[in-house]
Amino acid sequence: MTVKIGVIGCGAIGLEHIKRITNTLSGGKIVAVNDINENNAKKIIADLHLDAKFYADGHELIRSADVDAVLVTCWGPAHKEFVLEAVKQKKYVFCEKPLATTADDCLEIVEEEMKQKKHLVQVGFMRRFDEGYVALKKTIDEGQIGAPLILHAAHRNPAVDEKYTTDMAINDTMIHEIDVLHWLLDDEYISAQVIYPRKTGNASSHLADPQIVLVETKKGIRIDVEIFVNCKYGYDIKCEVVGEDGIAYLPEPATVQTRQKAALNRPILMDWKQRFIKAYDYEIQAFINNINKGQKLNGPTSWDGYAAALTADVCVQAQQNPGKILPIKMKDRPDFYK
Amino acid sequence: MTVKIGVIGCGAIGLEHIKRITNTLSGGKIVAVNDINENNAKKIIADLHLDAKFYADGHELIRSADVDAVLVTCWGPAHKEFVLEAVKQKKYVFCEKPLATTADDCLEIVEEEMKQKKHLVQVGFMRRFDEGYVALKKTIDEGQIGAPLILHAAHRNPAVDEKYTTDMAINDTMIHEIDVLHWLLDDEYISAQVIYPRKTGNASSHLADPQIVLVETKKGIRIDVEIFVNCKYGYDIKCEVVGEDGIAYLPEPATVQTRQKAALNRPILMDWKQRFIKAYDYEIQAFINNINKGQKLNGPTSWDGYAAALTADVCVQAQQNPGKILPIKMKDRPDFYK
Amino acid sequence: MTVKIGVIGCGAIGLEHIKRITNTLSGGKIVAVNDINENNAKKIIADLHLDAKFYADGHELIRSADVDAVLVTCWGPAHKEFVLEAVKQKKYVFCEKPLATTADDCLEIVEEEMKQKKHLVQVGFMRRFDEGYVALKKTIDEGQIGAPLILHAAHRNPAVDEKYTTDMAINDTMIHEIDVLHWLLDDEYISAQVIYPRKTGNASSHLADPQIVLVETKKGIRIDVEIFVNCKYGYDIKCEVVGEDGIAYLPEPATVQTRQKAALNRPILMDWKQRFIKAYDYEIQAFINNINKGQKLNGPTSWDGYAAALTADVCVQAQQNPGKILPIKMKDRPDFYK
Amino acid sequence: MTVKIGVIGCGAIGLEHIKRITNTLSGGKIVAVNDINENNAKKIIADLHLDAKFYADGHELIRSADVDAVLVTCWGPAHKEFVLEAVKQKKYVFCEKPLATTADDCLEIVEEEMKQKKHLVQVGFMRRFDEGYVALKKTIDEGQIGAPLILHAAHRNPAVDEKYTTDMAINDTMIHEIDVLHWLLDDEYISAQVIYPRKTGNASSHLADPQIVLVETKKGIRIDVEIFVNCKYGYDIKCEVVGEDGIAYLPEPATVQTRQKAALNRPILMDWKQRFIKAYDYEIQAFINNINKGQKLNGPTSWDGYAAALTADVCVQAQQNPGKILPIKMKDRPDFYK
Repeated sequence: MTVKIGVIGCGAIGLEHIKRITNTLSGGKIVAVNDINENNAKKIIADLHLDAKFYADGHELIRSADVDAVLVTCWGPAHKEFVLEAVKQKKYVFCEKPLATTADDCLEIVEEEMKQKKHLVQVGFMRRFDEGYVALKKTIDEGQIGAPLILHAAHRNPAVDEKYTTDMAINDTMIHEIDVLHWLLDDEYISAQVIYPRKTGNASSHLADPQIVLVETKKGIRIDVEIFVNCKYGYDIKCEVVGEDGIAYLPEPATVQTRQKAALNRPILMDWKQRFIKAYDYEIQAFINNINKGQKLNGPTSWDGYAAALTADVCVQAQQNPGKILPIKMKDRPDFYK
Repeated sequence: MTVKIGVIGCGAIGLEHIKRITNTLSGGKIVAVNDINENNAKKIIADLHLDAKFYADGHELIRSADVDAVLVTCWGPAHKEFVLEAVKQKKYVFCEKPLATTADDCLEIVEEEMKQKKHLVQVGFMRRFDEGYVALKKTIDEGQIGAPLILHAAHRNPAVDEKYTTDMAINDTMIHEIDVLHWLLDDEYISAQVIYPRKTGNASSHLADPQIVLVETKKGIRIDVEIFVNCKYGYDIKCEVVGEDGIAYLPEPATVQTRQKAALNRPILMDWKQRFIKAYDYEIQAFINNINKGQKLNGPTSWDGYAAALTADVCVQAQQNPGKILPIKMKDRPDFYK
Repeated sequence: MTVKIGVIGCGAIGLEHIKRITNTLSGGKIVAVNDINENNAKKIIADLHLDAKFYADGHELIRSADVDAVLVTCWGPAHKEFVLEAVKQKKYVFCEKPLATTADDCLEIVEEEMKQKKHLVQVGFMRRFDEGYVALKKTIDEGQIGAPLILHAAHRNPAVDEKYTTDMAINDTMIHEIDVLHWLLDDEYISAQVIYPRKTGNASSHLADPQIVLVETKKGIRIDVEIFVNCKYGYDIKCEVVGEDGIAYLPEPATVQTRQKAALNRPILMDWKQRFIKAYDYEIQAFINNINKGQKLNGPTSWDGYAAALTADVCVQAQQNPGKILPIKMKDRPDFYK
Repeated sequence: MTVKIGVIGCGAIGLEHIKRITNTLSGGKIVAVNDINENNAKKIIADLHLDAKFYADGHELIRSADVDAVLVTCWGPAHKEFVLEAVKQKKYVFCEKPLATTADDCLEIVEEEMKQKKHLVQVGFMRRFDEGYVALKKTIDEGQIGAPLILHAAHRNPAVDEKYTTDMAINDTMIHEIDVLHWLLDDEYISAQVIYPRKTGNASSHLADPQIVLVETKKGIRIDVEIFVNCKYGYDIKCEVVGEDGIAYLPEPATVQTRQKAALNRPILMDWKQRFIKAYDYEIQAFINNINKGQKLNGPTSWDGYAAALTADVCVQAQQNPGKILPIKMKDRPDFYK
């Protein structure tokens, strides 16, 4: 069987998903495309030789009998309405982060999905499909390091542009750690604190960089995340889990080690796009495979979308109250999402 | 477009290729299947819900108008006849190693292919598609370590069974280094010598293990390959290239490092099947993509199949004359294969 | 010239220093020994064939014309009186940590030393003489990583006994980080916060383990120190300095890497005594050499002893007020100690 | 007790040993100095404030009642006569490599020493005192990797000057591997073969660089040593021992790892003098301590000096017969040296 997929929004990430479904992945086919820019959409259909129809109206695309599943890859503020429509139509929907722009809007989707009694939504937090995180989770779940107690993380970017603001360190950067770490630890967040180290001379005047976010979980695990978006040296993601019996590390990407110029060295990526490139393939392939096999979706759920939105909100408040420990008051996780 | 593929031989590797083309890769479809065991072939068609026809005769399968490309994955001695038939029919053919059981038979295929004036044959040396070797080749080709002078390699297996004989160290094990290293160095072999170190107590009585094979190239690069198939500790492939300006190493697989029990450690694979598992996907995907796009095949050619067969023959002779340096007298590479 | 040394207190560390001065180091000689246990002291003199006199009174030992320099290695509460006496007698004195049991007592020593207008006191924080920290400091001071912004540290012990209490995590364990990190960064501490992660099941009931101490410096550098004294896996000291242009790490001890039993691994020490064993030699050798050459002592000063005591006091208060950020109000560093 | 030491030859290495005995090590004292350049010797005595007498005649120095032990650090061709004299006088003698310029001359010393029935000679192969090799030997001797089967080694220098000739790759460079590897493996050499890889463009016209020397031991262990003295990137010593159950590696020096400029890197030494600097201290300290304690010397013996000389001779012949496997016909090791 082939999953017939409609795409809402053909910008950067939308176009990439169209390409990977068409050229790389197995079991899915783009049959419908919507974009606010009709010419752009039609050009993509032509350029990629898609056997797909253009829809001027995203809702119409969702409701079309030709469409089995929907990709919501338009701009963030429009995510909610299309995801909600898809859920109401009992259609599978893959939505790029964020699920919605507020925690309340995410909750509305959660409730609609529960009403449908079926897991229909997958949110595009791709790190859960990264082989490194998967292997790290396996190591923890096998009990190799005992119960996790502390997690040290870092999210480093070589540089950001002038438009990058302090809150984006939470909403655009750390949002990936917010999602992946509670999945990794099988836990939930209960408080957050932000502290500001000495500022790098390489950040724009309005930006606090680096930042450290301290997060506490229900089980008492303490997480510290260093966010450093002008670190200059490379795009680098670190995750070290300290357990009762040992420590486990997120693998570094496999690269060619050399000995040259008085140094033993391994290259570090400068371009973040390369770091999790396969995880994008894997998350979409999993979405397609699960639909094809009638299995429950195994990626981030709409509840995870809500949890991420709420946690990010508190972290942004914590940024505005440096040193203060703020509670994260999440609703109880419904049985449906356990 | 979808490449319609016929498979000759559905044993272990044949079945795996059928599965990956059907479930994982993009752009190809299994339409025809041949196997000496009809029941087995039909069971596979049924189990995997293939939309494919069974052919009792491999030659008929090759000649069928339904078939664009052929996978030859039957037992080695039958490779030659099916590859030759495919080439004569001007059909693309992917043949598992060996291309043929003798260097002369390989040459016959080479000549037939040249007569057809089209690159039709890809041999299943998957390591050229391994990301690690590709990255290593890139490092060399970029000139980071200057001109290569020496190459140290090792091919280690935890254990082999009683049936594994001394010559298999060349024909089944080192055959992969034979192919991948001359590609890596863009060079050709001119001599070989075998020396036998002290034997491990873990090998069967009839087996010389470990062995060291010393190979010389046209450019004068000296290669030493340690073959150790009862090394106990893991499946481990090493490649270190010593150049005029520095040294480059084949990356180790990315794994979860831990600190536990008084040691900093990283797991080493025990199962060789895991080591190059993605390279199998990539070699077949490249085969399909190149056909689909009308591009020249970019994997090992029938000439490479000949070069590997001839080199392996001399290495086996060198096994029988320990310490002697034997010449490898390869024909001149035709322009067609440059 | 040979420095004639008197030792006050021949317990564990005192005896070790006597042995290293006698058997390993150059330029010093034990000439006088004091201990509350006369028999013990005399036995040591006999066993090691020391050409040394026993003094029943430490003050008398200090005042003896035979003694050029004093080692104060008796129990902590008695440090102050002997160090003070030595300073008053204008004799060089090496004092094991702590310099005194309170910050105020340390200040009294500081003032007496300033009165003498000569640097006479070296405190036994040996890590400043560890080759790893010295190399790390050099890397920072050379500007390789730009201005330091964040420092991540960990101090891990495989296990502690029942007598180890929560405050000892500061006074006995982290005290080494307290001294070495401000030297490393050439900076001073201004605040501390303690947070308690989920407790390990391997700690005794009365002990909070692990702990995280967050320290802020005058320059704004943020330090996080994980203290985990029942980590099981090994004795492990980590220090990672995040700078504007890059990151530098404290070297791991050089050990024999092996491949065995499906793992690439390197041993981690279980015994803390091995970790900085050479640093003890180097600190005492430097003390002797500087005296011999009439150079200024280059180890931790009495001011550093004061700074460590005050910082430790605030960290212990911070332990009692989890989550609260407490100020560290240090006096201004006198020019004499700059 | 203090060992009273006389030094014959105060050139580079002689002067360094004088300094370390005087300023760094414990238990020894320079009391006598001989050098062909009287002014040089007297200047050293004055500059270092040595309480030592100048001897115009090395033999007189050896026979002096003031001298307990002799350091022979003059030029190679004169080693034999002074070592022989010292042995005849039953004085301990530490001789820099080579023990003598021919294997036969070494044998003469061996025989004289056996006649004296006392181990009096230590040869200056310092690597046996390097902590890395010691740890590697311990790993092997503990049986962690089972019986050794293969040893891969490399000896790389960034560059050598015009005066460095092809045979020096054996006599000056690989001579260290020749001594340390048979000690490491507790074995003896029985054959050698030299092969010449493609030559680096960075070597002078008369020099073959790199070279590979293949050595076989009595137990059947196969050793390959890459000698590359214009490798450009650094001074680098590799030793990998392949055993029945696993592999062990000589540790790399502990250095500060950094992340900077798109790379994770660790510095490699450019200056060979730094690589084994502590081993020089340790070999001399062991020499002094063993004399002081009346223990048998535990460094390389005169027999080891003979074995190194003979092996080097065969390797030089093997250089002149590339590809040929030449036997190393060593005399049977007398019980005295077992």
